[in-house]
Amino acid sequence: MKELLGRLKERDREIQLLVHTAAILGWDQETYMPPAALEERAEQLSLLEGLIHRRITDPEVGEILEKLGVDGNRSPVVEGLSETDTAFVREINRQYIRNTKLPQDLVVRLARETSLGQGRWAKARANADFSMFEPSLKTIVELSIEKAHCLGFKDSIYDPLLDQYEPYMTSRELDAIFTPLQEKLRELLLKIKSSGAKIRTDFLSGKFDIRKQRDFGLAICKKMGFDFQKGRLDISAHPFSTTLGNRDIRITTRYNENFFNTALFGIIHECGHGLYEMGFSEDLAGTLLANGVSLGIHESQSRFWENMIGRSLPFWEYFYSELSALFPDALRGVDCRDFYNAINVVEPSLVRIEADEVTYSLHIIIRYKIEKMLLNGEITAGDARDIWNGEYKRLLDKTPENDAEGVLQDIHWSMGAFGYFPTYALGNLYSAQFRKTLMHEMPSIENEIRKGNLAVVREWLGLKIHRWGSVYPASELCRKVTGEYVNPDYFLAYLAEKHGGIYGFG
Amino acid sequence: MKELLGRLKERDREIQLLVHTAAILGWDQETYMPPAALEERAEQLSLLEGLIHRRITDPEVGEILEKLGVDGNRSPVVEGLSETDTAFVREINRQYIRNTKLPQDLVVRLARETSLGQGRWAKARANADFSMFEPSLKTIVELSIEKAHCLGFKDSIYDPLLDQYEPYMTSRELDAIFTPLQEKLRELLLKIKSSGAKIRTDFLSGKFDIRKQRDFGLAICKKMGFDFQKGRLDISAHPFSTTLGNRDIRITTRYNENFFNTALFGIIHECGHGLYEMGFSEDLAGTLLANGVSLGIHESQSRFWENMIGRSLPFWEYFYSELSALFPDALRGVDCRDFYNAINVVEPSLVRIEADEVTYSLHIIIRYKIEKMLLNGEITAGDARDIWNGEYKRLLDKTPENDAEGVLQDIHWSMGAFGYFPTYALGNLYSAQFRKTLMHEMPSIENEIRKGNLAVVREWLGLKIHRWGSVYPASELCRKVTGEYVNPDYFLAYLAEKHGGIYGFG
Repeated sequence: MKELLGRLKERDREIQLLVHTAAILGWDQETYMPPAALEERAEQLSLLEGLIHRRITDPEVGEILEKLGVDGNRSPVVEGLSETDTAFVREINRQYIRNTKLPQDLVVRLARETSLGQGRWAKARANADFSMFEPSLKTIVELSIEKAHCLGFKDSIYDPLLDQYEPYMTSRELDAIFTPLQEKLRELLLKIKSSGAKIRTDFLSGKFDIRKQRDFGLAICKKMGFDFQKGRLDISAHPFSTTLGNRDIRITTRYNENFFNTALFGIIHECGHGLYEMGFSEDLAGTLLANGVSLGIHESQSRFWENMIGRSLPFWEYFYSELSALFPDALRGVDCRDFYNAINVVEPSLVRIEADEVTYSLHIIIRYKIEKMLLNGEITAGDARDIWNGEYKRLLDKTPENDAEGVLQDIHWSMGAFGYFPTYALGNLYSAQFRKTLMHEMPSIENEIRKGNLAVVREWLGLKIHRWGSVYPASELCRKVTGEYVNPDYFLAYLAEKHGGIYGFG
Repeated sequence: MKELLGRLKERDREIQLLVHTAAILGWDQETYMPPAALEERAEQLSLLEGLIHRRITDPEVGEILEKLGVDGNRSPVVEGLSETDTAFVREINRQYIRNTKLPQDLVVRLARETSLGQGRWAKARANADFSMFEPSLKTIVELSIEKAHCLGFKDSIYDPLLDQYEPYMTSRELDAIFTPLQEKLRELLLKIKSSGAKIRTDFLSGKFDIRKQRDFGLAICKKMGFDFQKGRLDISAHPFSTTLGNRDIRITTRYNENFFNTALFGIIHECGHGLYEMGFSEDLAGTLLANGVSLGIHESQSRFWENMIGRSLPFWEYFYSELSALFPDALRGVDCRDFYNAINVVEPSLVRIEADEVTYSLHIIIRYKIEKMLLNGEITAGDARDIWNGEYKRLLDKTPENDAEGVLQDIHWSMGAFGYFPTYALGNLYSAQFRKTLMHEMPSIENEIRKGNLAVVREWLGLKIHRWGSVYPASELCRKVTGEYVNPDYFLAYLAEKHGGIYGFG
């Protein structure tokens, strides 16, 4: 058995090296690559993806898994293995099953249609004309349905797609979470609206020197514990974090000289992702267990830092004097409390990525519902815009002026990434649940943050979450850390308390 | 035959994509990679090298070459193929032969010893103590001798190693070139010394703002025709140029605020390399023919631009007013002629990379002689320092104070790169020969340069040299462009004329 396991580990090592190599190409593409190189970079990446796919689906892997007696079982237990090795076999097996179930022909068609689809989506968005993207969306939905059938499911066709991003989660569970969440978020929104409080945000659109923004962002990353021996911060059009090696974590941001929030909260968010990737236990390094266990958990780390730390009053009680000294003109006459209120203002909007903490999850729920209906066949691609606009009216009382700020705003569907959106909302829920536990276990935590001691936060997250990588499935990890499975009440309580303070109710 | 050729081309395409992928990893390592990532980056690169090696030596390639009737022949001609396809088969065949002749075991031992060797060399250099590196050098020489025997040779054990960098060139030819070159360079050096002329260089060590140096360097690259849609200029500790894709050529430099020459002449040099790589004909793109044909020819392009253009009087007659306006303090009271003389000053030194145009090739000849003796077994690694110091005394009348500025100054031997150094000197010879032809074909060329019209230079080089890639072997290319094989007389005449003007003789 040791020998079989050794052979799997050898193969996995090569796969991880290739995965990181592809990540290097991707990072370069988004940061420094000259524009004319784009076409050939796609060829380079597609070659690497082919090499990786061939290794993941190598029949010999299937034979080894069969000999280990785990073939075909999604949550196998092999007698006599350590906890880590059990998780390793489970994840290799999951990866093998998922990849071998998809016929090569479907993979190629999906790659082609989503590649075309992204181009058409970009064009349609530029023209604010959904009808230009609709035929692509139709094809991509059809292929995604085909994909879901190949992967197989019990309850809902949505499940195998969701499972790509949030393993083991089901749409039945999501429904049970999202239905009450939607109602309670709307109630909270109503309270906020009817509070009558007016919050100034004009000063956030002042003039903020980019170099100073950058230095301040770097200083906060360091305080958070981002290790610049093992990582970097660069600039890209769309901020992201990526892992180029076990000791090579890169994050990016973009700077807007005329709006403060863009860069700094982006940096804190990506740094949260980066700290997770930097925090895997040494004995997982170089294996597929040195990966975030789910996108929801990953997002919980970025949102925890961005919103629950970076948009908290204790954080700014420490950092605000530094900030206002850095930007005396823009922040003249603005005190810490004004600033805190401004960066937490709640205002229903049409665009997800600009949404506040209260309305954000409503944007997600709208997308989730539409995705389910598309995949169930309840609606066709052509109906998506009307449903979209109807739901925005109903939940947020907003109507897009055009498709660019409506149904065309996100790239995800053009990439075939159905099942992805819910992980953003799950991230909010997990993060609030982790926050509750942290505050319970370290009652002095807000005082520490007020002293600028962010290291203690990272240490706690590292110990409870980061180091485990993918050893425990997300739901199991959540239960181990917080004592229960994911529960939206903590997020709702957090929002009510915070915004009760800001808007003067509750 | 068409089908066989097609199969070779398909394989070559994959190899080129992987070669460029490895180049991306290498570029990142030297420019942006965080330090802690070094160890795993070596693993990633070694995996890619393995993938490339396996594809180059795939037995099926041998079978196809055999079917084409070229197996084992270094310069095969296949009836009925176009010029380009003939060259393609020749180069694939060369690559296959070279790589299959080396046993895997030797490749692994060489990789390990040179990897260790580089570490020991760096340490020895830091301690200025050759004895710390000597055991490594001994092993690397032994393995290189073994390598040369595996590759096979007729006349000299030096030839198969030289052939890695300067294909088809032999040490017999080098001897015939270097022996008179050495004597005539020494005669010229004597003339310069006895001219008694004193040349001011102090102002080159003034204060030069790095951002201004960078902008000026970028402007010159643009004038030279470097296309920033297809390339970049970045910073690295050791300047280099590298190709990450057919439309992705990267160059680097380093900036020294207190010495002008470092960055700018480095940029012009690397830009010369970059223009070669940018200039391959479109129909070679993506194949192994889209490569410099030899390191000597490659170096001819960088040195042509750096020395024969960038250190020429017409060049500075155009650019000097801009430069002196940029650095008014450092260049106060310095006129164009003073500046031109200063950047061309001849002064024997101990360090190759700081050498002027006259003494540079003498540094190379010393290394070439020592390499031959080491590989012939005339001397052992332990003798290298004494021979080195003796030759420096004899040829340049300089004695290193310690091994760091003597025998330990270059990394090449620790990398096992025997046969590499001569290509630097060949670059000088080729470039002067190309220059002579250019001046003959375009008598107005100096006037064009004086008007800042560098495009005409790049166009000529592009038409005559760049576009051919590796279609013609270096000697053939040289004959096609200049009407004769490499001949050191042009380089010597160029130096005599230039320095006769500067030092007032001849």
